[in-house]
Amino acid sequence: MAAAVSGDVKDLALAALGLERINWAERDMPVLRAIRERFDAEKPLAGMKMSACLHVTAETANLARTLVAGGADLVLVASNPLSTQDDVAASLVQDFNIPVYAIKGEDESSYYRHIAAALKHSPNVTMDDGADLVSAMIFIALNRLDDLHPELKAWAKTLSAAERTGLVENVVASMEETTTGVIRLRAMEKDGVLKLPVIAVNDAETKHFFDNRYGTGQSTLDGVIRATDMLLAGRRVVVCGYGWCGKGVASRAKGLGAHVIVTEVNPVRGLEAAMDGFEVMDISKAATTGDLFITVTGNIHVIREEHFALMKDGAMICNSGHFNVELALDSLEKIATTTNKKVREFVDEYVLSDGRKLYVLGEGRLINLAAAHGHPASVMDMSFATQALATEWSIKQKGELKNAVYNVPKAVDQWVAALKLQTMGIAIDTLTEEQRKYLNSWEIGT
Amino acid sequence: MAAAVSGDVKDLALAALGLERINWAERDMPVLRAIRERFDAEKPLAGMKMSACLHVTAETANLARTLVAGGADLVLVASNPLSTQDDVAASLVQDFNIPVYAIKGEDESSYYRHIAAALKHSPNVTMDDGADLVSAMIFIALNRLDDLHPELKAWAKTLSAAERTGLVENVVASMEETTTGVIRLRAMEKDGVLKLPVIAVNDAETKHFFDNRYGTGQSTLDGVIRATDMLLAGRRVVVCGYGWCGKGVASRAKGLGAHVIVTEVNPVRGLEAAMDGFEVMDISKAATTGDLFITVTGNIHVIREEHFALMKDGAMICNSGHFNVELALDSLEKIATTTNKKVREFVDEYVLSDGRKLYVLGEGRLINLAAAHGHPASVMDMSFATQALATEWSIKQKGELKNAVYNVPKAVDQWVAALKLQTMGIAIDTLTEEQRKYLNSWEIGT
Amino acid sequence: MAAAVSGDVKDLALAALGLERINWAERDMPVLRAIRERFDAEKPLAGMKMSACLHVTAETANLARTLVAGGADLVLVASNPLSTQDDVAASLVQDFNIPVYAIKGEDESSYYRHIAAALKHSPNVTMDDGADLVSAMIFIALNRLDDLHPELKAWAKTLSAAERTGLVENVVASMEETTTGVIRLRAMEKDGVLKLPVIAVNDAETKHFFDNRYGTGQSTLDGVIRATDMLLAGRRVVVCGYGWCGKGVASRAKGLGAHVIVTEVNPVRGLEAAMDGFEVMDISKAATTGDLFITVTGNIHVIREEHFALMKDGAMICNSGHFNVELALDSLEKIATTTNKKVREFVDEYVLSDGRKLYVLGEGRLINLAAAHGHPASVMDMSFATQALATEWSIKQKGELKNAVYNVPKAVDQWVAALKLQTMGIAIDTLTEEQRKYLNSWEIGT
Amino acid sequence: MAAAVSGDVKDLALAALGLERINWAERDMPVLRAIRERFDAEKPLAGMKMSACLHVTAETANLARTLVAGGADLVLVASNPLSTQDDVAASLVQDFNIPVYAIKGEDESSYYRHIAAALKHSPNVTMDDGADLVSAMIFIALNRLDDLHPELKAWAKTLSAAERTGLVENVVASMEETTTGVIRLRAMEKDGVLKLPVIAVNDAETKHFFDNRYGTGQSTLDGVIRATDMLLAGRRVVVCGYGWCGKGVASRAKGLGAHVIVTEVNPVRGLEAAMDGFEVMDISKAATTGDLFITVTGNIHVIREEHFALMKDGAMICNSGHFNVELALDSLEKIATTTNKKVREFVDEYVLSDGRKLYVLGEGRLINLAAAHGHPASVMDMSFATQALATEWSIKQKGELKNAVYNVPKAVDQWVAALKLQTMGIAIDTLTEEQRKYLNSWEIGT
Repeated sequence: MAAAVSGDVKDLALAALGLERINWAERDMPVLRAIRERFDAEKPLAGMKMSACLHVTAETANLARTLVAGGADLVLVASNPLSTQDDVAASLVQDFNIPVYAIKGEDESSYYRHIAAALKHSPNVTMDDGADLVSAMIFIALNRLDDLHPELKAWAKTLSAAERTGLVENVVASMEETTTGVIRLRAMEKDGVLKLPVIAVNDAETKHFFDNRYGTGQSTLDGVIRATDMLLAGRRVVVCGYGWCGKGVASRAKGLGAHVIVTEVNPVRGLEAAMDGFEVMDISKAATTGDLFITVTGNIHVIREEHFALMKDGAMICNSGHFNVELALDSLEKIATTTNKKVREFVDEYVLSDGRKLYVLGEGRLINLAAAHGHPASVMDMSFATQALATEWSIKQKGELKNAVYNVPKAVDQWVAALKLQTMGIAIDTLTEEQRKYLNSWEIGT
Repeated sequence: MAAAVSGDVKDLALAALGLERINWAERDMPVLRAIRERFDAEKPLAGMKMSACLHVTAETANLARTLVAGGADLVLVASNPLSTQDDVAASLVQDFNIPVYAIKGEDESSYYRHIAAALKHSPNVTMDDGADLVSAMIFIALNRLDDLHPELKAWAKTLSAAERTGLVENVVASMEETTTGVIRLRAMEKDGVLKLPVIAVNDAETKHFFDNRYGTGQSTLDGVIRATDMLLAGRRVVVCGYGWCGKGVASRAKGLGAHVIVTEVNPVRGLEAAMDGFEVMDISKAATTGDLFITVTGNIHVIREEHFALMKDGAMICNSGHFNVELALDSLEKIATTTNKKVREFVDEYVLSDGRKLYVLGEGRLINLAAAHGHPASVMDMSFATQALATEWSIKQKGELKNAVYNVPKAVDQWVAALKLQTMGIAIDTLTEEQRKYLNSWEIGT
Repeated sequence: MAAAVSGDVKDLALAALGLERINWAERDMPVLRAIRERFDAEKPLAGMKMSACLHVTAETANLARTLVAGGADLVLVASNPLSTQDDVAASLVQDFNIPVYAIKGEDESSYYRHIAAALKHSPNVTMDDGADLVSAMIFIALNRLDDLHPELKAWAKTLSAAERTGLVENVVASMEETTTGVIRLRAMEKDGVLKLPVIAVNDAETKHFFDNRYGTGQSTLDGVIRATDMLLAGRRVVVCGYGWCGKGVASRAKGLGAHVIVTEVNPVRGLEAAMDGFEVMDISKAATTGDLFITVTGNIHVIREEHFALMKDGAMICNSGHFNVELALDSLEKIATTTNKKVREFVDEYVLSDGRKLYVLGEGRLINLAAAHGHPASVMDMSFATQALATEWSIKQKGELKNAVYNVPKAVDQWVAALKLQTMGIAIDTLTEEQRKYLNSWEIGT
Repeated sequence: MAAAVSGDVKDLALAALGLERINWAERDMPVLRAIRERFDAEKPLAGMKMSACLHVTAETANLARTLVAGGADLVLVASNPLSTQDDVAASLVQDFNIPVYAIKGEDESSYYRHIAAALKHSPNVTMDDGADLVSAMIFIALNRLDDLHPELKAWAKTLSAAERTGLVENVVASMEETTTGVIRLRAMEKDGVLKLPVIAVNDAETKHFFDNRYGTGQSTLDGVIRATDMLLAGRRVVVCGYGWCGKGVASRAKGLGAHVIVTEVNPVRGLEAAMDGFEVMDISKAATTGDLFITVTGNIHVIREEHFALMKDGAMICNSGHFNVELALDSLEKIATTTNKKVREFVDEYVLSDGRKLYVLGEGRLINLAAAHGHPASVMDMSFATQALATEWSIKQKGELKNAVYNVPKAVDQWVAALKLQTMGIAIDTLTEEQRKYLNSWEIGT
């Protein structure tokens, strides 16, 4: 049966397997399910065109179903060329009638053609995972077409001046899912070019406390293990960056028996890592001693030529930060005498002139999505519940929001966390009247 | 030799031992030492009268030396009747000529007489550990003398109306060291009665990330072990509250082999505790199963009659929150048929009607200060370095600050953490020019 | 190209992928490589017919290569119907000329036909992973043909009486790899039916301290995660059994943020688990509260009808003990109203009459081999180095060994561990002359 | 009131405080209490003269009461000059009529005079903590009086030849509590000079799995913290030795946030430490980087001149092994230009020629007993329950035992652990009939 909607996916024949995965993930997303049931009844997103640029996974599929249940007219495109689950994409098109543009391993041209498809939808609400949609709209609105990828530029050129600015003006609000994206968006705000309201969903406690820490923590090591089948016990694992993601990765690597070394640029975080029992050193020294390197900084070229040159024979290197810029792979390519791509799935071998072999995992893209299945459903349950509620909230604020980066209201955090605990069968306390009064008073001291 | 300064300490003959402790602590406070050396040269606090209401310990003594080196005319009084180290107090008077009013085990009247001494000094800068000085000054300024302790009331009555408001108007800024105090001060601000600028030193990253977590974590369990000599491995330890202090206590109890149970009122924190691997339940259920209970909530009556009634024979109960209000000891006294005070130093035994015995440690006061020596010097090094620098900064802002709660500037955090790392022999990275630019730009995406 | 040797594998066309895996594993098995190089030069196994019944994985392939390099005439068969890596089996036949009888998912008949192939080889040395070869030979020698699987019985019937006893008499020694196998073999010894010398390779420190603990620990959770994509943080994970495998699984589950509950029958181990900070309870109580159950006991029917009946909706159940008898799946089948096989690869769904759904992973077979790739190479490096050296040692003892269970000589343990450390770049100390003397003397006291 | 019995303690006036401690410990020793109650009824030790050479602590007092309740005629002497709790010793004499020879800080002469008192008692059963009683008796029996301390030698000289050999022949069995002692005793057995049966109580699972690991682990760090008030988080802690004690210390130091470095001479243990996530290196390298050094090896001169010479300014060094020979303090004394004893209680400062200061804690004696209160009662409950039951068992075997080192019967381990679990409110499983049969059979395979 042909799909009723358009889109660009690998193979609709994969839909059955994709549906199985979507249903499996759904079991572990009870908070999002509760929202979907309410959305289905209340249709708070009715009349809204939405474009979401996200990792196309089984968990995202459940978010997509929720948004559609709420009345949104949704287009979904990939936020990373390697992270798409093709069977899920097929099922979304085939079984849920949601247009999806995403193919695992797509080249850059396809990637940006898909971004263009999201923009052509003329969205009233966007959802980003790294701010790619927003930045494209901003470049277009600023008429900086040369800063766009050729695929986007070609399309942007077809737009009138009014259409170019209209694109972004048409947006009620944009949700942002990542630390990296929020950094970009705050930089835009600071530069005075942020032309739409943004909700920093990443900064919600129910998002970054959980997804960044527990999700990235487990799934990054899962990706490493699937890619390499290596034992972590006894290995020297270098974690670059001790933000929420880095804390998660370091903690899980330690939990698996590794000797964890942390590198940082922020002294407060460096000190925190040291007091948490990790060894802290600069990357030049760490380069000489690590067995496995994982970058989670949100920054560029964290491991570069001078560090590759120092590494031990057999060292493994990967990235779990949002963009594949954290490893300076060009420079590694340059100093390698031989490059053997795919000596094993997700593993490229670089041979240095003295015979040392270095292994790059997942081509430097987020290893948890490249080699494993990304964040587990139960943690995405919270992130995506927050996405859905932030979307609803921003629509309710329509016209009230400035072109700035907003936090998700605390009440959303509290509601999501409380429901999550309940679905886990965990009871917590409530404040007594006396306690509530005490916390609000200042009269009682020693 | 009689001390050159006034004050009220237990016994000047203890000074030699106190000096030994002050010097021992000083070894582990290199950041504060560096500040003291600069203050000594620059005298940034010259001309300032200061009153500090803090736990009088060897670490505080080193802060006091630093403030005096900076030119301050300082009076130090106890912030808790049980936490004073009498030998340190003696040495401060005897060896450092700093007036101190603090005696371990002092009764409430003495405690407030000492608070009065701090106020009589007419301070330009105050330093609080629980907001007792500020709240007293506010009550006086508001003419709410009935809300004061009789000792304070008696003195306040001697003041003219102008003196009553002048007291607080005379203050350039007040530093606050605790979470509890900051909660009180924000409540004052919200109520519109905060009549002086406050610096929330507690909220500095170099303070609450470290002192609250690592300091409270280790020293609380140290206090429990000294009070009881109990083995923690295999015990069911209930930690009430999963803020920074609670995280520290839970983590260290786990690290010592306990099975840790966390109770919370905040669902986000409850969920965080669960994902950190702790068992989370409500206090009524925890009461039936715990071997040891530790409150670190900043709230009142967290464990109360209904919970004591459920506890197992032999249960131990203590508090490590700032004020001794977290345990409703009155209600325990009420349901106990016999109360045997001091069956062991720092341990009171309460016998219930069915023969069960419950043990309260340190009379419900901060167990880390009552039964052990409070936070270790190396972590107070950071908190007190931040105190000293915040004091200097607030004096520089004289006249610019409103009657509000301010955060410590980020630069102070970064400076303190960087120097601390250096003294630990730990090198971290610095951003490359390319990285700095990348973090400030928003143009580069996928 | 047809393979030069016989065997029964899935598809020789898979050989290229298998070779890639064998080579990848070899990178992480430096100790075994060193032995292979020496064996190649010295041929200590020359003239020996060997039959090995092991999990046919990339690591085992490297052991097989080593034995063959040592001069052995080797046949390799599967020790578990689900654990074979078909590509590795193909490569062993195609690239290494080693006859292999092993197909992933083979039925019971095939499994025992393969065992028969191992016996038909008339081995002088056997290698077992669960004592299946030895027990078959013993049944045949005892003429207890009815205790054999029909496939084996059919073949055994074709043997003369002399051939039946000759089979076992022909064996110089048999190596045993598992705790489960050693328990069986000691039971045989106790019953007086052990008719050949056995080396308890499992009991070598370099084996069970590492492979059972670190190998099983990581790979079991790896298997669970691959099978389910579940987040472990915040889950209640019930580990049945706290032997070396159970210690490993419990430790790694805790390291991934789970709340771990241990069940035991041995009070010393139960106490050890409690003092290690785990919650310990009986299985009936654990059944009501667990989210994930993992058996690693070496015993039968550890989780049975009465426990399945108590479980929560959505509970996951798996086994990582050697034999698939730890879960009483027949009884679950009986109480389930519907059984949906493969709702997802490696996951069977059982629906109970009240609608609760339970999920069994990997059909109750070792989850680390069923859903993941078994123990990582670096830990099998030690186990298999010990296997190879124990084989060499037992051949040297030919004629000296009684029909009993022997330990691997301590010197083998020390040599393997020392070389492993060296390949990890880790230096340790050596005893000074004074220390050596001190340890051997008893004269020096307080 | 004068005590009814002889002995040599510091001050009988301390008895009240000692009694309080003995009673407090008793609360946490329910297994030993159950044995005491049975012993009191059955008097299994009736007619036996016993000499026990143990650390005289509140826990030991409860063992002494138990032995006396069982009918033994007991003399108790110190096994270490620094570990005696003088108040407990006083109470044992005053309140329990047990002769005790032990004074905290006693000099070597007193120490051996006390050992002599134990021997003069002509014991039928001895109990040792480091084999000092047994080795003295052996030297005397061998007529090697020059190997004795002068105090012992003087007394031994007064004995006839028959009395010299009679001393040891009179002993039914000797219990040994420590790893160190068992090593000495096995060396005696190997040398053919062990002239009495020994029960290696240390080697019982209920002893070394718990007391050595959890007891030494917590109490060693407790000793360090009491001696120094240092924060462990972020420190580089070097643990020399990864036996059961070392495992405990390393695990607890990690649990308190330290970066733990392990040194070993045994490659299997070194590898185990590495796989447990610790950094492993040789002591020469560790010496350059550690902040705190703890020896727990049972060996001599583990840290010696060449290592002290490499240490960082401010390094702290202590021992938690049985004998104070692990640190070569003589060599440190030699290279120090100044030695400041007791810059703080339990802390001696050594100043090297270049100004670096090193700190030795507790004079190199077991830091957990020197600066803290030794093992917590709840873990000694198990060790001493095993001591009492091993004593009873050995008396039942009277005449059956050879002059060899025996293990405690497994049934004792199982009984002690089962009762301990019960007192902790923990239920475990029992084998079903089917399971018991399965474990004893070898017939069931794949």
